[in-house]
Amino acid sequence: MSLVEPLRHIRPQTVSRITLLTDFGTVDGYVAAMKGVIAARAPNAIIDDASHDIPPGDVAAAAWTLSRYWRLYPPGTVHLVVVDPGVGSERRALAAEADGRLFVAPDNGVLTRVLAEVGDTAVVSIEAAELFRTPVSATFHGRDVFAPVAAELARRVAAGPAAFREALTGLGPAVVDPVRLPLPEPYRAADHLAGEVVHVDRFGNLITNVPGEWLAPGARARVAGGPAAPLVRTYAEVAPGALAALVGSAGMLEISVRDGSAAERLGVGRGASVRVEPGA
Amino acid sequence: MSLVEPLRHIRPQTVSRITLLTDFGTVDGYVAAMKGVIAARAPNAIIDDASHDIPPGDVAAAAWTLSRYWRLYPPGTVHLVVVDPGVGSERRALAAEADGRLFVAPDNGVLTRVLAEVGDTAVVSIEAAELFRTPVSATFHGRDVFAPVAAELARRVAAGPAAFREALTGLGPAVVDPVRLPLPEPYRAADHLAGEVVHVDRFGNLITNVPGEWLAPGARARVAGGPAAPLVRTYAEVAPGALAALVGSAGMLEISVRDGSAAERLGVGRGASVRVEPGA
Amino acid sequence: MSLVEPLRHIRPQTVSRITLLTDFGTVDGYVAAMKGVIAARAPNAIIDDASHDIPPGDVAAAAWTLSRYWRLYPPGTVHLVVVDPGVGSERRALAAEADGRLFVAPDNGVLTRVLAEVGDTAVVSIEAAELFRTPVSATFHGRDVFAPVAAELARRVAAGPAAFREALTGLGPAVVDPVRLPLPEPYRAADHLAGEVVHVDRFGNLITNVPGEWLAPGARARVAGGPAAPLVRTYAEVAPGALAALVGSAGMLEISVRDGSAAERLGVGRGASVRVEPGA
Repeated sequence: MSLVEPLRHIRPQTVSRITLLTDFGTVDGYVAAMKGVIAARAPNAIIDDASHDIPPGDVAAAAWTLSRYWRLYPPGTVHLVVVDPGVGSERRALAAEADGRLFVAPDNGVLTRVLAEVGDTAVVSIEAAELFRTPVSATFHGRDVFAPVAAELARRVAAGPAAFREALTGLGPAVVDPVRLPLPEPYRAADHLAGEVVHVDRFGNLITNVPGEWLAPGARARVAGGPAAPLVRTYAEVAPGALAALVGSAGMLEISVRDGSAAERLGVGRGASVRVEPGA
Repeated sequence: MSLVEPLRHIRPQTVSRITLLTDFGTVDGYVAAMKGVIAARAPNAIIDDASHDIPPGDVAAAAWTLSRYWRLYPPGTVHLVVVDPGVGSERRALAAEADGRLFVAPDNGVLTRVLAEVGDTAVVSIEAAELFRTPVSATFHGRDVFAPVAAELARRVAAGPAAFREALTGLGPAVVDPVRLPLPEPYRAADHLAGEVVHVDRFGNLITNVPGEWLAPGARARVAGGPAAPLVRTYAEVAPGALAALVGSAGMLEISVRDGSAAERLGVGRGASVRVEPGA
Repeated sequence: MSLVEPLRHIRPQTVSRITLLTDFGTVDGYVAAMKGVIAARAPNAIIDDASHDIPPGDVAAAAWTLSRYWRLYPPGTVHLVVVDPGVGSERRALAAEADGRLFVAPDNGVLTRVLAEVGDTAVVSIEAAELFRTPVSATFHGRDVFAPVAAELARRVAAGPAAFREALTGLGPAVVDPVRLPLPEPYRAADHLAGEVVHVDRFGNLITNVPGEWLAPGARARVAGGPAAPLVRTYAEVAPGALAALVGSAGMLEISVRDGSAAERLGVGRGASVRVEPGA
């Protein structure tokens, strides 16, 4: 393939960076296949593994994970997301730009949180088949479509100096209706707040959609009608094993057990309801 | 050790790339130890994790995984494979070249699929002990033998411009009989095709050794005498939960369950027999 | 944030390298958040994943893992360790230098083995709040404190040519009493050696704190009063499935089962006692 350049002919000019988020695990070689395609086509790009442990096909989980890091990377970064249970169907392949960061992903809602966070975005449907590996397999667009396009974007970014959004030029037509997942909305009633658990992390912390700024000292939170967790500033303010509510690193209310798992303690998971007396 | 160069003295000239495939997991620090040796000896090399989750000692699984990505990387890439249940025995350590890519691995069959794919290869037995860390431990040649040699190859590639095969010069004598795993061969009978499952992936897809080009519309596949799976082009052509046969990303017949696991559904794994009515 | 530099403006001058060791897993996006902060602030730094699979909050395990690789990396490497069950409490954040390598970690004992290995080290308490992300969250100093400081150290290293220890300048006051974990000490009695299991690896090998140089041919080791394992040089000297004692890659006595798990066979784990007849 003419796009493959021997490594020795490369002189690095500019660093570009591609992050990878998939549900592939690593053991089947699918991730390494994508990395190989990128290495062949954008040899100077640094590839950062975000995660390959998204539960298979869990688009909502991937959307959450992506939301935790995409904006911390510098402008010009290419975020490649392949959680793609609809591979081989008619779902579109998207490239997007938001706040200077670039995205390549299937059109299945995985970009929902990115697009909800930024007002002025650009989204295109990838139709530039000349970039694809051929033939395009029916089951692995990560290798044959998404990785080649991510590599192309990294090359365009490295070539600078156009605006990052210009990197999308020629990939395909604008998309005005990317698939969006329904994001549960928290609400404020007269005497309480209500929301739900949107993510359970490795430590068993229950991350909710209730904004931290809605809370005041004295707030108490209950998940699924369980015991009340008092609002504290840090884990260290409660005894080991005690339930606590705090504003976590996402800026949202989290329910935690110090040195333990709130998810296990309360026996709940994503989607569990949260009711909060907001304090004063 | 005189080969350790402080990072600050390095001026990157040329990118070289080393991939790592092991059965080490990451938590014991064995992988990081190998990366440290590479960083010290080939500071400009980019290290890509392929996988560290190969089941302990499963050389056949590693051979499969390697086959999925080695050729997608550009010429000059060094593929380092350490799945090495025979460490400390008399098994040889190999360096090899195939189609411009370089390999460093124990002589236990893990290169079987690479060598089967390419006619003209070069294989040597690594005996250049001056490259090794000393003393060489009895249990961790990944750190003491393989990583140093991979770093040396990356340096030679970066120094260019000789042919990539020349990078093997001086490592040791040619090997004409590298260990090869028996690869199960599919066959074509008058009225059917037969093969077996060679890999089960994270999604429960059963990847077989039956070439996609042997199949025609109307083909039906049975694994271990189970129900017939109709040949389709993509998962989307069958209902969620239905069994399907398709040509997967390896170009081989795969048996899948849409949005489910064929391995679980059928209760089978690697080595299960596959019988196909080839269609017409 | 003014510290975020668009990727395209970067011209790589010097490679610097940051390793990451955490108990975060990857699926929640915490690791990718840290990588993003590093990419934004030290765009030329290569980031190596050491491990993200440390058992949650297991500082002793992280200290062991770090000990396996930190010195194999070249001088100038920044080793970032975030296993931080005390996040949000008054525990200090440390930056340190040992043998030319730099460290950023919570003051909870995770550097114990590094500091025990090297006589002349420098340790400071990180108080240079101007480097932190603001506001600093109560639960994720990895992102808001440790990653920014690691990036800053990488930038200072890349700027050369001062001594690596000078990179700590201005981060905060010297610390003379970093938290140290109690390290179990082996001892030599008249007729036997005694120690304990300090780590169990993925293969079920029981790594002890008994130095290999204390052993002589004919030594026999028992874990927790179990069967005697004869000292051999490599796994290959015993039959598959047999128990063996050998000097492992850490230079310590290890108890192994060839092609099996000694931890499972003996039903023991970290902390189990080891008694050795030292041989002669």
